[in-house]
Amino acid sequence: MERLDDLQISGLKILQDPERFCFGMDAVLLSGFVQVPDGASVLDLCTGTGILPLLLSAKTKAGQIHALEIQPESADMARRSVALNHLSDHIHVITGDLKEADRIFGTASFTVITCNPPYIAGGKGLQNPEAPKAIARHEVLCTFRDVAEQSAKLLKSGGKLFLVHRPDRLSELLVTLTSCGLEPKRLRIVYPFADKAPNMVLIEASRGGRPGITVDKPLIIYDAPGQYSEEIRRDYGF
Amino acid sequence: MERLDDLQISGLKILQDPERFCFGMDAVLLSGFVQVPDGASVLDLCTGTGILPLLLSAKTKAGQIHALEIQPESADMARRSVALNHLSDHIHVITGDLKEADRIFGTASFTVITCNPPYIAGGKGLQNPEAPKAIARHEVLCTFRDVAEQSAKLLKSGGKLFLVHRPDRLSELLVTLTSCGLEPKRLRIVYPFADKAPNMVLIEASRGGRPGITVDKPLIIYDAPGQYSEEIRRDYGF
Repeated sequence: MERLDDLQISGLKILQDPERFCFGMDAVLLSGFVQVPDGASVLDLCTGTGILPLLLSAKTKAGQIHALEIQPESADMARRSVALNHLSDHIHVITGDLKEADRIFGTASFTVITCNPPYIAGGKGLQNPEAPKAIARHEVLCTFRDVAEQSAKLLKSGGKLFLVHRPDRLSELLVTLTSCGLEPKRLRIVYPFADKAPNMVLIEASRGGRPGITVDKPLIIYDAPGQYSEEIRRDYGF
Repeated sequence: MERLDDLQISGLKILQDPERFCFGMDAVLLSGFVQVPDGASVLDLCTGTGILPLLLSAKTKAGQIHALEIQPESADMARRSVALNHLSDHIHVITGDLKEADRIFGTASFTVITCNPPYIAGGKGLQNPEAPKAIARHEVLCTFRDVAEQSAKLLKSGGKLFLVHRPDRLSELLVTLTSCGLEPKRLRIVYPFADKAPNMVLIEASRGGRPGITVDKPLIIYDAPGQYSEEIRRDYGF
């Protein structure tokens, strides 16, 4: 059942369907990790129902924001959310396959690309690989290498890819980005608690950047069970 | 001026010369990160004055421990420390070049390799590249690629390399290890404080391991200025 959720920022709202997919903390943290120069052209890959473009329109002074989604129903919801928020002149949702993004948008077209991709390698053993949740979570329709290869083509020289992913794939992510000419430049590890293993990684990579990465201070979500850390409350309004 | 320092564990002592090099927190943390199966053959590369072999002899039930050092004066101090601690039957210090380690020890000879290598890329612009401190800190006599290539040759299949290094080289380290057939399997980020950027990374890589890395809970050194965290006090006796 579709519902309209308040994003608690700039009066923005988003259409979501819990049976299909709802955005999570990962998308919110990615929106805070992304740095968009004023007026920069932005592309969000695997946009789903458009959470990243909506948050970036409120948090940054981005120029035109494009958003690509392969599932027509999700793209349609994203497009309707954009219209509901009177942002149709600013955010453009395209239904299409990430693997053809360079043909859709043209190479070297963007200064910033964001992506909250499916986290789980492969789609083997899935009971229902065509289910919306499976497509959003598993690499059924695109792999991380697809994301990196396409981003390398779509970014201008010096342009940046920002992504969120899982720690267990960190090494593979950095190796794949590097092999595609996207130099990892910044990494932030997200720990649920200060004494627990991390559950997310935030990565910034630069097309044609020089070697050398900055690892940021840890992003810790909770100070105690049920109590968000000061940073999460201050920067994300939780 | 050479001096004899107490290692505060098992009555061990180590000869050091502050004008040449003294071991730091990095070596101590590496000794706690290393996992040595009982009886396993161990090699410490870039051993300096032998801090890692000494600590591992106390903290693990390693089999024979070999240690390689290119600077004759450091190797001599390491050898004398081993003798002072009555460990000459257990720890064997060899003076030699890491780049020839496979010829010195033979390929596929070790289950565990440890290394606290020079952290700073290149030796350009150094006033005195032959100074002991320059050789210990800068990649004057060996690069990280040398460490990885030699470790891949020296390790048995499934054998493990444990190392400590700097965060700004994390991406390069993981890429280089992977390209040498050493799959990064575990990563621990060391933060001086819970709200500061990290200053060390601890990495475990497995020769011929399957992809997939575990990122451990953060290792935080200080709870407050001058006050070590509980883990540092409990596990390292600081």
